[in-house]
Amino acid sequence: MEFISECLRVNGQGHLAVGGADVVALAKQYGTPLYIMDENQIRNTCRALRCAMQEYYGKNFLLAYASKAFCTAAIYKIMNEEGMGADVVSGGELFTAIKAGFPTDKIYFHGNNKTAGEIEYGLQSGVRRFVVDNLEELELLNETALRLNLTADISFRIKPGIEAHTHEFVQTGKIDSKFGVALETGEAMQIIKYARTLKGVRIKGVHCHIGSQIFELEPFKLAVAVMMRFISDVKNELGQDIPELNLGGGFGIKYIKSNDPPSPADVARTIAEAVKESCEQLNMQPPFIVLEPGRSIVAPAGITVYTVGSVKEIPGIRTYVSVDGGMTDNPRYALYGAVYELLLPERPLDKKDTMVTVAGRCCESGDLVASDVRLPKTRAGELLAVLSTGAYNYSMASNYNRVPRPAVIMVADGTPKLIVRRETYEDLIRLDVL
Amino acid sequence: MEFISECLRVNGQGHLAVGGADVVALAKQYGTPLYIMDENQIRNTCRALRCAMQEYYGKNFLLAYASKAFCTAAIYKIMNEEGMGADVVSGGELFTAIKAGFPTDKIYFHGNNKTAGEIEYGLQSGVRRFVVDNLEELELLNETALRLNLTADISFRIKPGIEAHTHEFVQTGKIDSKFGVALETGEAMQIIKYARTLKGVRIKGVHCHIGSQIFELEPFKLAVAVMMRFISDVKNELGQDIPELNLGGGFGIKYIKSNDPPSPADVARTIAEAVKESCEQLNMQPPFIVLEPGRSIVAPAGITVYTVGSVKEIPGIRTYVSVDGGMTDNPRYALYGAVYELLLPERPLDKKDTMVTVAGRCCESGDLVASDVRLPKTRAGELLAVLSTGAYNYSMASNYNRVPRPAVIMVADGTPKLIVRRETYEDLIRLDVL
Repeated sequence: MEFISECLRVNGQGHLAVGGADVVALAKQYGTPLYIMDENQIRNTCRALRCAMQEYYGKNFLLAYASKAFCTAAIYKIMNEEGMGADVVSGGELFTAIKAGFPTDKIYFHGNNKTAGEIEYGLQSGVRRFVVDNLEELELLNETALRLNLTADISFRIKPGIEAHTHEFVQTGKIDSKFGVALETGEAMQIIKYARTLKGVRIKGVHCHIGSQIFELEPFKLAVAVMMRFISDVKNELGQDIPELNLGGGFGIKYIKSNDPPSPADVARTIAEAVKESCEQLNMQPPFIVLEPGRSIVAPAGITVYTVGSVKEIPGIRTYVSVDGGMTDNPRYALYGAVYELLLPERPLDKKDTMVTVAGRCCESGDLVASDVRLPKTRAGELLAVLSTGAYNYSMASNYNRVPRPAVIMVADGTPKLIVRRETYEDLIRLDVL
Repeated sequence: MEFISECLRVNGQGHLAVGGADVVALAKQYGTPLYIMDENQIRNTCRALRCAMQEYYGKNFLLAYASKAFCTAAIYKIMNEEGMGADVVSGGELFTAIKAGFPTDKIYFHGNNKTAGEIEYGLQSGVRRFVVDNLEELELLNETALRLNLTADISFRIKPGIEAHTHEFVQTGKIDSKFGVALETGEAMQIIKYARTLKGVRIKGVHCHIGSQIFELEPFKLAVAVMMRFISDVKNELGQDIPELNLGGGFGIKYIKSNDPPSPADVARTIAEAVKESCEQLNMQPPFIVLEPGRSIVAPAGITVYTVGSVKEIPGIRTYVSVDGGMTDNPRYALYGAVYELLLPERPLDKKDTMVTVAGRCCESGDLVASDVRLPKTRAGELLAVLSTGAYNYSMASNYNRVPRPAVIMVADGTPKLIVRRETYEDLIRLDVL
């Protein structure tokens, strides 16, 4: 049987294993709900992307891990060891990266609404790039830099007007977006022209992000063509060099078997070749390329393990399987109707002969993990795993219903390591002024 | 001008005031985003409900605050002072209540998937009632009680088969629900019959919850009729007395001016009269009534204050106003498309002449606070308030994008008190194993 992620196997006990570690044993040791991730798969994806970029583009690039997918000290350490950069979207992510010893000169600071405090923090930390979203931010950044006697290296978030075909809620890049400045209205050219007059900033690049969970290569080609044309226009109209092109992320992953995303290598090659082609057409030097993969690096490397609490058969209607987690550790079904592959780690090869809806434990009807999915007939006390939860699960977790957030285990070569401890009841009240 | 909540006024400075405290001054002192709540409005709603129940039903009732709406030590203290009970849905809520000195003999323990640990914790804490959701829970509860040499006082969560007209995601009570046992299939009768054979539990009541944010009185009448008939049937078929009827919550509140919910007093009277009517028809003694208001007590008493970071006019399309919070402190737009009333606290009476979409600060297109709402033309640096956020905002908050959760201020007679401190960057990494 082939699993959806490389890191998954059936071991000698007939149990599901992540990176060689027995999921049933880990659940017993650390309790449930539990996130389990495989370090090797994470590293392998980073390496595959890097190798592909080197093969097709040379050395003139940086891969910046999109932290928001899974932001913990441990992941920054791994990314640093893999020679990755990082993209952060808040002071909190920057703080975590710094605490993990991540080099700030490889950090891209994103966000449509960086606060004054965050801008100062980013400047004083020496981040490599502020990806400027809007005019007010540009002015605030310039003033803050001048006040601190620093210069901010900036790129601009551009709306190239391209829509990748994904769920509406995770779609960006089109002109009707809260992010960035539009190319087609002239706004993008204008803000660059204005930035040239400011002493506190240095123009280094342009950035775009055309969507999330993208399965086609065409949108990336299109984005490259539009952005390269824009870089050329900026040079021609303003005499301004733009040495860096950041194409963001959005690389799709396989959540369920019918998903058919391109490999990281395919995406890298597509982008590299499109950039080179544009450069030839426009008679330009190849820019420094930045890519910001997040989900594609961590999502397939992680699973969530729950314990079944009850199985409720409603004759003729539906069977609800309740687990000891749900929207508090994975709000993606409630938010987007996200679909996942599920299995029972104690008997992963058993025939999925029962149609069930897996419900979370929150006092809320919308708290479902998956609806109308096939599983082997299960019962209270069994473990249930949701696959490909390495991204946008722990990072989006809440304490709704005052449910503590699960622990996270990182497995390396079969050896598990606790990288995020389970939240306790005492943790839950630590902000309460008693 | 009439505001949507009693606690809101325009003060002498022309600013918005909550419970007599100047919102602009509070934002300056405590920073933004900031939740501000009015204690008097909370207490007044509790009293109005209590008075109405006393007037129409006598003393044979308990109002149990549904903690999940807003669960903090401070609110339990207020509820206790108001003579309220509480409903909790997790060990974390129970822990918070206990830490706040809330009497456990007034606590109802809910949840479709209580864990073994929570059941033991609830038993040892002496909660007044376990609201049993399913067969597995009943058995686990019985076994645990026997092991601990205790007896659990229980009621049963019944699906009465009534749907209140609300948003699909917050609808319960119908037979296709993860909660409870169905009446119409005989499942409810069966579990009570079975419970009578168990030595570790004592049958005390039945419970139903027919929906959330309900604007009509009819569904409550219907629920009473169905549940009273069931209590009568249980007596007739099994010889079992059910002395307590818990009708849950779901009382609607006014989020926007066009919402027209019944007053708490109307709901109380409707329920009280329906119960008395059923008792006459069925020739029964009036049961002890439990109601579980949550949202209706805290939602209208709270607001969220943000600072505007940028105003992005996309000609012919939309104007985005970005604020320094969003789905991390209020995920209800992203989850349910929830609508709110907004205003500018520095000039609350200014004409709302501009159509805007208010965007949150998260790196996610779906992070909106409100779409296509009218506001006075605003600019970076101004404050923006979202009203009626006292429920399901702080309790659902996350650290997505590693954004710290805001502070909560409780105002009493014009005097503000910090009841939940703002999360710090250090707090954010406290679970990371470095």
